[in-house]
Amino acid sequence: MDIIKIIEHKRDKKVLSTEEINFFVKEYTAGNITDYQASALIMAIYINGMNKKEISDLTIAMADSGERINLSDISENIVDKHSTGGVGDKITLVLMPIIASLGVPVAKMSGRGLGYTGGTADKLESIPGYRVDLGIDEFKQNIKDIGISLITSNVDLAPADSKIYGLRHSIACTSNIPLIASSIMSKKIALGANKVLINITCGDGAFMKKMSDAKKIANIMKEIGKEANREVRCVITSMAEPVGYTIGNQIEIIETIKCLKGEMPDDVRQIIYALGSQMLIMAGKIKTANEAKQLIDETIKSGKALKKFEELIQRQGGDVSYIQDITKFKPSKYVIPVLSDKEGMVNKIQTEMLGNLSAYVGAGRNKKEDKIDYTAGIVLTKKIGDIVRSGETIAYVHTNKEETVNSVVKNVKDAFTISQRKTSKPNVVLGTII
Amino acid sequence: MDIIKIIEHKRDKKVLSTEEINFFVKEYTAGNITDYQASALIMAIYINGMNKKEISDLTIAMADSGERINLSDISENIVDKHSTGGVGDKITLVLMPIIASLGVPVAKMSGRGLGYTGGTADKLESIPGYRVDLGIDEFKQNIKDIGISLITSNVDLAPADSKIYGLRHSIACTSNIPLIASSIMSKKIALGANKVLINITCGDGAFMKKMSDAKKIANIMKEIGKEANREVRCVITSMAEPVGYTIGNQIEIIETIKCLKGEMPDDVRQIIYALGSQMLIMAGKIKTANEAKQLIDETIKSGKALKKFEELIQRQGGDVSYIQDITKFKPSKYVIPVLSDKEGMVNKIQTEMLGNLSAYVGAGRNKKEDKIDYTAGIVLTKKIGDIVRSGETIAYVHTNKEETVNSVVKNVKDAFTISQRKTSKPNVVLGTII
Repeated sequence: MDIIKIIEHKRDKKVLSTEEINFFVKEYTAGNITDYQASALIMAIYINGMNKKEISDLTIAMADSGERINLSDISENIVDKHSTGGVGDKITLVLMPIIASLGVPVAKMSGRGLGYTGGTADKLESIPGYRVDLGIDEFKQNIKDIGISLITSNVDLAPADSKIYGLRHSIACTSNIPLIASSIMSKKIALGANKVLINITCGDGAFMKKMSDAKKIANIMKEIGKEANREVRCVITSMAEPVGYTIGNQIEIIETIKCLKGEMPDDVRQIIYALGSQMLIMAGKIKTANEAKQLIDETIKSGKALKKFEELIQRQGGDVSYIQDITKFKPSKYVIPVLSDKEGMVNKIQTEMLGNLSAYVGAGRNKKEDKIDYTAGIVLTKKIGDIVRSGETIAYVHTNKEETVNSVVKNVKDAFTISQRKTSKPNVVLGTII
Repeated sequence: MDIIKIIEHKRDKKVLSTEEINFFVKEYTAGNITDYQASALIMAIYINGMNKKEISDLTIAMADSGERINLSDISENIVDKHSTGGVGDKITLVLMPIIASLGVPVAKMSGRGLGYTGGTADKLESIPGYRVDLGIDEFKQNIKDIGISLITSNVDLAPADSKIYGLRHSIACTSNIPLIASSIMSKKIALGANKVLINITCGDGAFMKKMSDAKKIANIMKEIGKEANREVRCVITSMAEPVGYTIGNQIEIIETIKCLKGEMPDDVRQIIYALGSQMLIMAGKIKTANEAKQLIDETIKSGKALKKFEELIQRQGGDVSYIQDITKFKPSKYVIPVLSDKEGMVNKIQTEMLGNLSAYVGAGRNKKEDKIDYTAGIVLTKKIGDIVRSGETIAYVHTNKEETVNSVVKNVKDAFTISQRKTSKPNVVLGTII
C-alpha cells in the first residue's frame, strides 16, 4: 500500500477503504508517513468529505493507534463527558464534582486551550500545585479512592489523533465535521468509557456555527458509537454568548467555586441540569431526567459537591486553601472596566471575538508552545437581554500586558451590540439527542 | 499576513490576492512556513483551482524567489525549449545540437527524471565524464564559445518552485495544470530566456492525458508569458506511444547519436521539424516554418549537428570517443527479448506503464535520492501500426536486476495490444499554438 495512492484517491473524491485508512493511521503514527503527506490528505478530507463508514474507520484506527485504557475494574458503567469547546465553558469543572458527589465515578481527561477556546487542564493549573499530568495508575487509584480524577492526556492515548489534531490547527482544518467527530470519539474509545455524553456547543463562539451542523455531528458520533459498541448521547447547547460571566483561567475557577456554592448563573444551571440528567441516566443512577434536578440541587445545597471539588484538588496536589478562600487568587495587574457608550438592551455578543480577545490579553495560546497568563481574561457584567445604561460597566478586562489595554477595551465594547431593540434571553439548551 | 488565513481562503475556494501569494512564496522559501502548511495549501489549490491572475502571480513570485540569470549579453534572442515530459522523450538531446549548429545559441537547463518520466540530465550523465553541474559562469562561457551548453539546475533558480515541486510528487499533486504551468514558467523566467518554446506532450505517457488539457495549459502558459513579457509558443505532440524506440538513459543517448547521424525514427523527425521550425522563427533565423526542414536536413547531412553534439560533450568533460564509437557503451547484464504470443497489428501501447517498467528495472527513480542504473531500460522494436508475427520480438528489456526479469517481460508484453484490427500510425504533432 502506498500513501501517495491514498492521497490521490481522496483528492479525486473516492471513498477510502478500511485498509487504506488503517495503513495511513498506523504508518503516520510510526513516523513512516511525513507530516506534509498527512497534511495533504487531511486537506483533501476537509474539502472532499468522508462518508460515515470512513469516519468510523478513521476513529477506530486512531483509537487503536496507542494503548487502550481499561476502566471496567472501577465500575460497570463509566460515563465520560466531552464538550466540543467554547468560550467561557467551565461546565466540566462544575458538573464533574456534582456527579461524583452523587456516587457516580468520574474519570475525565481534558485538553488544553488553543485559539479562542479555553482548556479545562489550563484552568485547573491556575490553582497552585494542581497536577494535571498524573499517570494512568494514579488516575485510576484516585477514582477508586475518591470517585473522581481530572487530568490531561499525557499517556499515549490515540497518539494518531494527537498528531493529526496538532496539524489541523496549523493548516486551517479545525472546523470540519468528520475530523472533529473522529478526533473526539477516538480519544473517548481509547479512554475506555462505555458511555459517552457529548456536549455539542453551537453558535458564534463554537466550531459548529449552525444548528444543522451540530445535529449532523451528533448523528455521526452516535453512528461511530454504534460501530464501537459505545452508548453515545448528545446535548446541544448555545454558544450565542459565553457560558457564565467569565472567560479565562483563574477567573473561571473562581466562578466554578461560586457555582458549587450555589451561586450559579442561569445559563450554567440549565446546562448542568441537562447534561447532569443524561449522565446520571447513563450511569444507571436515575431513570428519568426529571429526577436529576432535585439530586443536583441537594448535593450542592448540602455542600457535598464543593467538598468533592476540594477533595479532587487536594488529592492532585492543589492548594485547597484557595478554594476555601477565593480572595487568595491574585488578580492581574490591570483590571479595566469596559463602559458602554450606548443605552438600551444587549442584543448580541460576538462570542468568538471575546474568546480571541481573552487569548490575546494572555489567557490563551495561538501555538501549542505559548505560555498562558492564568490571571488574564475577560469578566462580563452584562449578557444578552440585559438592560444597559450609558456609562455603565459591561465587562472587565484582566491583563498584565499594558500594551494591549486600549485596543482590547475598545474591541470588547465593539463585541456587544446594544440598542433600543428588545431581545429576550437566548435559549441555552437547544436539543438532546439520545 | 497569516499563512493559516491564506490556506483557509483557498480551502474555501476564494481567489488569493497577489499579496497572499507573494507572502506564501517568500516565507516558504525562507523556511518560515512549514512543509505541511505548504502541502495543505497545494492540495487546496489542486482541488479548488486557481484563476489566470493567481497562476501568473504564483509564477512571478516563484521566479523572483531566487536570483534571475541575465543572458542578454549572449544574444538578443535566447530561445529556451521545454518539454512537459514523457516516455522516451529524447527530443532535447537531438534538437539542441541541430539548432546550435545552425548558429542559434542554445542555453538549456534540464531536470532529472522522477516517476515514469526520464530526465535529460540523467541521460547525459550516462556518457562517462559528462558534467551537468556547471556553475552559471561556465554555462554562459560555453554558450559564448561553442553556442551550446546543457546543464542541470544547480543554482538557486526559482528555489520556491524547487521546494514546491519536491513536495508535489510526494502528495499526489503532480498532475495539475496551474501547478505545472507555474512551475515550468517560473524556471524559464528566472533563467532569463525571452523566448520560450514549450513542447506539451499529450496522451497515455504524459501528464496531460487529454487534448483539452494540453490546449488549456498551452493557453495558460501564453498568458503567463504575456504578464512576464516573454514570447511563448507551444507545440503539442503525442505521447500515445514512446518517442522513438528507446526508454532509458544510455540507450536513449545511443538513439540520439543515431538520430544526429540521420537515422531518425519517423516520429522523432516530425517532432524535430515542428519544434525546430518554431525555435528558428523565434530566434529570427527564418520567417516561415517551411524554411526549417531544409536547414535541419542539411545540418544533419553535413555532419554539423553531430559535430556540435561532440563539441558539447567534450566541452563539458564527457568522453567523446563514446559518441564516435557507440559500441563502447556497455549493455546491461541482461538483455531479454519480449516475444509476442499474438499475431496481427499493434493497436495500442500503454506508454505510462512502459515508463514505470523502465524505471522499475533501474532506469528511473521513485524518490529524489534513488540511484539510477544508466544501462537499464526498454528498447521497442514494434510501434503502433506495425505488423507482428507470433513469436516475433516486440521489445527488449535491459536490466541488471535479475529478480525483475520475469515479471517485467510479462508486463511489457501486456503493455502491447495486438490484434487483427488495422490501426494506422498515430499523428505525432497534434497542434501548434503561436
